[in-house]
Amino acid sequence: MSSHEFYMETALRNAQAMKGQTDPNPLVGAVIVNDSRIVGIGAHLKAGEPHAEIHAIRMAGEKAKGGTIYVTLEPCSHYGRTGPCAVAIVEAGISKVVIAALDPNPIVAGNGVKILQAAGIDVEIGVLRDESEKMNEVFNKFIVEKIPFVTLKAGITLDGKIAAYTHDSKWITSAEARQDVHKIRNENMAILVGVNTVIKDDPELTARIPNGRNPIRVIMDSSLSIPLEAKVITDEKAETWVFTSQNFNQDKRKVLENLGIQVFVTNGVSQVNPKEVLKILGERLVSSLMIEGGGTINAAFLQNKLVDKVVLYMAPKLIGGRDAATFFEGTGIDKMADAIELEDIDVVKIGKDFKFTGYPVYEKSLLGEER
Amino acid sequence: MSSHEFYMETALRNAQAMKGQTDPNPLVGAVIVNDSRIVGIGAHLKAGEPHAEIHAIRMAGEKAKGGTIYVTLEPCSHYGRTGPCAVAIVEAGISKVVIAALDPNPIVAGNGVKILQAAGIDVEIGVLRDESEKMNEVFNKFIVEKIPFVTLKAGITLDGKIAAYTHDSKWITSAEARQDVHKIRNENMAILVGVNTVIKDDPELTARIPNGRNPIRVIMDSSLSIPLEAKVITDEKAETWVFTSQNFNQDKRKVLENLGIQVFVTNGVSQVNPKEVLKILGERLVSSLMIEGGGTINAAFLQNKLVDKVVLYMAPKLIGGRDAATFFEGTGIDKMADAIELEDIDVVKIGKDFKFTGYPVYEKSLLGEER
Repeated sequence: MSSHEFYMETALRNAQAMKGQTDPNPLVGAVIVNDSRIVGIGAHLKAGEPHAEIHAIRMAGEKAKGGTIYVTLEPCSHYGRTGPCAVAIVEAGISKVVIAALDPNPIVAGNGVKILQAAGIDVEIGVLRDESEKMNEVFNKFIVEKIPFVTLKAGITLDGKIAAYTHDSKWITSAEARQDVHKIRNENMAILVGVNTVIKDDPELTARIPNGRNPIRVIMDSSLSIPLEAKVITDEKAETWVFTSQNFNQDKRKVLENLGIQVFVTNGVSQVNPKEVLKILGERLVSSLMIEGGGTINAAFLQNKLVDKVVLYMAPKLIGGRDAATFFEGTGIDKMADAIELEDIDVVKIGKDFKFTGYPVYEKSLLGEER
Repeated sequence: MSSHEFYMETALRNAQAMKGQTDPNPLVGAVIVNDSRIVGIGAHLKAGEPHAEIHAIRMAGEKAKGGTIYVTLEPCSHYGRTGPCAVAIVEAGISKVVIAALDPNPIVAGNGVKILQAAGIDVEIGVLRDESEKMNEVFNKFIVEKIPFVTLKAGITLDGKIAAYTHDSKWITSAEARQDVHKIRNENMAILVGVNTVIKDDPELTARIPNGRNPIRVIMDSSLSIPLEAKVITDEKAETWVFTSQNFNQDKRKVLENLGIQVFVTNGVSQVNPKEVLKILGERLVSSLMIEGGGTINAAFLQNKLVDKVVLYMAPKLIGGRDAATFFEGTGIDKMADAIELEDIDVVKIGKDFKFTGYPVYEKSLLGEER
């Protein structure tokens, strides 16, 4: 590891430590080095409070002059609730800026670097870029595309199934894996299932962890057939938003709304279009969505190229059955060469199970190249 | 690592180095230690030649006296093509014997240990037992059960599928994974597919590696519908054995036999019973079988609890489709709590793919306990 990477790693660790407390801002960390010694460290702690660079510059005081600042995200260029960090860096007399990743926020996007370079500061970009980008993957997508970052989660057997042919599915994965799911739910602003999952499993869809934040429960229900006694309707543990099609039941809508459930009528004639769901969620500032659907809901999002991240809890067991449901059903993709590839795969063992995380690469699969 | 484990590890490495050259005998290694120094090493090199212990005793010469021998398998007690090693150990004046695993061979099975103990030698059993047992997993099963050790192999997508809904399946896994398959084929005495795989893919089923040994090609074909122009019939690259049911075509049988193909008529009325196939293979001294069937053949062996080891090459891609075939079809198991669990799981990356190896635990799944 180069010294550049060592200092950037330190900045990244401080940034990551603030996970969950900077919303809607991204995680950012900074380290100032002068004469081979760290003279200041900083992290963005909370929206409305100083950015990471400012904390680090304050700590360094006079020692910032002539130093190098390592910052996990491009210093900002705009006058928001705090002044532009790029200007503060210039004023502190810092001579070199090492940046992990550029800020995708259209109001920054290279402008911070321009301010620094105009002041004659040496700027280096890309040290531990991947780590920084992954850390802010939700922010980075939402700030640009205005629709939520979508994580698809499934608990599956090694043969890809989410239930036996009899529909029995309790339990596929170990208690440890199910506990990990609660952690991911807590990290997402909303969680989506199809109405069939509500009818069949009557799930709570809450994050059962101490001090956990419950996500908004989003139900795709083309005709408003959701049972009124379902936990997501009655338990008041979190908001429930139901998305329906033009084919909905007008009386049921009123009943649901009287129970405090938000009902969104989308443009689909008889089906709810997943793209429209994401657009509406984005307009309501929902930046992250976790899909825990069955095979049909999952297929609707995957085949429309709407999933950003796939998390599979794979139990080391086999259930078999031609008619047993897999986690990705629908029509499916025609050719193996066009399959959705996942990249940046991470595999960790959780209890008896294996947690696979990967990022779909839709561009490549469009090329249809032989792989 | 204790010194016991260090010496046994050395013995195991020597044993493993002889993989493929000791058939039908197991792999065995030995190390003799005296006064904290290794004074002799040995391995079984070839059937009919001396056992590992004899080589090590010869190398140690006088220094064997009072020493400790580490041997990966219980010393033999029978007069075969070589004398009983247990007696040779006693005669060499060795004072202690450390054994990794007992010999499951019914004609040894503890008798070697009895000879040693009767001579007043200190015997310790179980150091690196699992490693030794796994090294000889094929031998250990065959010597006791007289049917082949069965490895089920499949190349699958992350959603468990072996083809798109259109039946397209080229290619699921990377070239590196497919190369690894040739290595496993080379390690197995026979390879089994269903006739549908022959009709659809016309595979060679050979081990395309330098100096590779081609396995016997075993085809399950209940009515003898195998095409006469199939590579496994015409290419003469390896023997082909066809197993059929009582429902077979008598004329086709003669044609096949005239082409040098062995045809086995089994007792099944219209289906070939996988248990009977294994029995017949065992009678012909086929000690290892690799199954590369489609989802139906795989299900026949898995649901009959006939698979000893599962090897899955999992490509990090998703193909989807309710009608796309998974690698384990058939009826399937009724309840998730009764799923076939795999234990002793190993996951390694091969090219872009993940190779999962595991051993089915049928006893546990019979218990139907909640997991």
